[in-house]
Amino acid sequence: MLDKYLNNIKEKRPLIHNITNYVTVNDCANILLACGASPIMADDKDEVLEITSICDGLNINIGTLNKNTIESMIIAGKKANELGNPVVLDPVGVGASTLRRETAKKLLENIKFSVIKGNISEIKILASGYGHSEGVDASDKDMLTNDNIENIIKLAKDFSKKIESIIVITGEKDLIIKEEKVYIAENGNAMMANITGSGCMLNSLICAYCAANKENMLEAVLAGVCNMGICGEKAYFKMINHELGNSSYRNLLIDEIYKLKGEELDKYAEYKLY
Amino acid sequence: MLDKYLNNIKEKRPLIHNITNYVTVNDCANILLACGASPIMADDKDEVLEITSICDGLNINIGTLNKNTIESMIIAGKKANELGNPVVLDPVGVGASTLRRETAKKLLENIKFSVIKGNISEIKILASGYGHSEGVDASDKDMLTNDNIENIIKLAKDFSKKIESIIVITGEKDLIIKEEKVYIAENGNAMMANITGSGCMLNSLICAYCAANKENMLEAVLAGVCNMGICGEKAYFKMINHELGNSSYRNLLIDEIYKLKGEELDKYAEYKLY
Amino acid sequence: MLDKYLNNIKEKRPLIHNITNYVTVNDCANILLACGASPIMADDKDEVLEITSICDGLNINIGTLNKNTIESMIIAGKKANELGNPVVLDPVGVGASTLRRETAKKLLENIKFSVIKGNISEIKILASGYGHSEGVDASDKDMLTNDNIENIIKLAKDFSKKIESIIVITGEKDLIIKEEKVYIAENGNAMMANITGSGCMLNSLICAYCAANKENMLEAVLAGVCNMGICGEKAYFKMINHELGNSSYRNLLIDEIYKLKGEELDKYAEYKLY
Repeated sequence: MLDKYLNNIKEKRPLIHNITNYVTVNDCANILLACGASPIMADDKDEVLEITSICDGLNINIGTLNKNTIESMIIAGKKANELGNPVVLDPVGVGASTLRRETAKKLLENIKFSVIKGNISEIKILASGYGHSEGVDASDKDMLTNDNIENIIKLAKDFSKKIESIIVITGEKDLIIKEEKVYIAENGNAMMANITGSGCMLNSLICAYCAANKENMLEAVLAGVCNMGICGEKAYFKMINHELGNSSYRNLLIDEIYKLKGEELDKYAEYKLY
Repeated sequence: MLDKYLNNIKEKRPLIHNITNYVTVNDCANILLACGASPIMADDKDEVLEITSICDGLNINIGTLNKNTIESMIIAGKKANELGNPVVLDPVGVGASTLRRETAKKLLENIKFSVIKGNISEIKILASGYGHSEGVDASDKDMLTNDNIENIIKLAKDFSKKIESIIVITGEKDLIIKEEKVYIAENGNAMMANITGSGCMLNSLICAYCAANKENMLEAVLAGVCNMGICGEKAYFKMINHELGNSSYRNLLIDEIYKLKGEELDKYAEYKLY
Repeated sequence: MLDKYLNNIKEKRPLIHNITNYVTVNDCANILLACGASPIMADDKDEVLEITSICDGLNINIGTLNKNTIESMIIAGKKANELGNPVVLDPVGVGASTLRRETAKKLLENIKFSVIKGNISEIKILASGYGHSEGVDASDKDMLTNDNIENIIKLAKDFSKKIESIIVITGEKDLIIKEEKVYIAENGNAMMANITGSGCMLNSLICAYCAANKENMLEAVLAGVCNMGICGEKAYFKMINHELGNSSYRNLLIDEIYKLKGEELDKYAEYKLY
């Protein structure tokens, strides 16, 4: 059932405009190529309008902000909205500084996002203006547990309705939420937290899924999240079998994205409606 | 016959100044080390003049332009010209925005390039001011076929004469053109299009070949193009044998550059005078 | 004896703020994750004060300077000093341009560094205002030999006393110097010079060691240097056994950092008090 969303990427080869951080940008480009999409990176305010105009989707990531690129994000985001192209936000470490919080606020005020993906801490900050966030990882106080899952889902549903976006909350289990509809996806491997960029790469991948499946984005996002998780599992076994570590794991993860076929996505995806 | 050009790199260890994009910069540095050259990356206008003065070649790539680096490219390019050092241009996605087109125009007006390397779409835009380019890949309308090869070669020959540069057109087959002399190089593997940066890396490699072989650049560029293609083939078989994907392919490609010896370059190079 | 310094990283998981170059930034992030620390990269002057305030250590690297980040380095460095957090400097290619020399001077005037790590050429320039440096590698005139080791150590001891920092001089053998105390560390492999970023990664790693071992930084730095060298050796054998090259070596090196346990660090570390 999810296979068609992946097959659509491979068939349509959507061109994805990325305004992202300089830490993981290479991995984001390679994961887009791996899934069958095509990447372009451009962040100068004098060219982002034209670049986003020839693209099928826009991926915005606030991992290494600077003033020039903030303006570019808004120009590109507005244009993508105008064109009806999906715009996906990764609010990396939004709790870590005033600049990140204010930028996220400005982005949300100016751009309609198709999807916002973050860990619980990041989504809590965006949704409610408070929360605990240190660095770029979810705060321990913000882990998803059986005790707080109801509250988290309520928060995300309300946020989704308010801004009319799909909300993805990543963690041991991933939540994909659109208004009252909630999917829980259970693929993945703890090793994904031991490399830089697994979140950034997921955001790029989600953007490709949305760009190739505009008419059914919620299930396309679910497919993207499962795709990443399945490949995280496969890469882990390969890493262990070859006695490798986190840097090779990053390559193996992208490799598995490259190799995964639609039918395998269907076979291995573990998710349920909540 | 081509082996000496590679051996000259390993012997002279030319220092290459790169003003390049932040997506593939790490791969460009590693491929330069792999072939025996030494990389330095610097793009602030306050230091590029000094940096390029201690270098043996300059590699300019417009993949992620911003206003500061454009000025730096011109300062460095003029200085390298003054010193008689080779300057190599990769006009990445030059058709994708006005900023890229105008920057390329400004670079061509101010700097004499030893080599310009691009796909057909990119070279057509530079040579004739028109063409079809979306994103950073060659447009389907611009693929090299038996029907259009004569026209493409004519265009490149004229462009080469006009700007007194070697023109490299990459594709399934690669064309290396200097005025009336045309080489067709046939090494390579389609997998090279499934990673980010194979074009950027080739440009770095060409720059190293030029810097170590100033007295015979055309054949040195041919050697560089064959070197890349041969290693793309070798890396592909290694990737398949180990059931890997595009991210590992990137590493294997650079690894093969590291391992290739002069005699293997001669043994495997496939090219002819057109 | 050194194992506890590594174990402290894995236990405390220090958050390291990196203001570094865009060439090797991804490898720096992954090596920090590999050793058990957590990375955050941020260089906009409007957020570095807040970012460094939530971190346990600051890593400054001048590999690809630009005017904006120089100001950020000083803001962050002063704040880290105020907080009593370690600040570690990698003066990459400091001899290559006036901008780098003046920036290094400004950094030393404004920030108290816990550790400064460089090759002989770089340290000589900082310590004495002269020296020979081309590009980012140590000049041949500056190699450590039996003839000059006394002079080099004298220079570094004096510099260490003057600025109250630990000085690390990398090369075939590494020197770790604090005032009159000198360690010579002998792990490592020549292959480390064939990848970009081994110096940058070492600086990140040293920062993690310092941040997790504030009460005994000299031995912690020694442990970090040995850790890097041991993993360089292990990665080399793996590279050779699998017929790989420099790009895979980079991954294998980080992989070995990921896998190395405290007891192995103790078992394989080769160093002596001079």
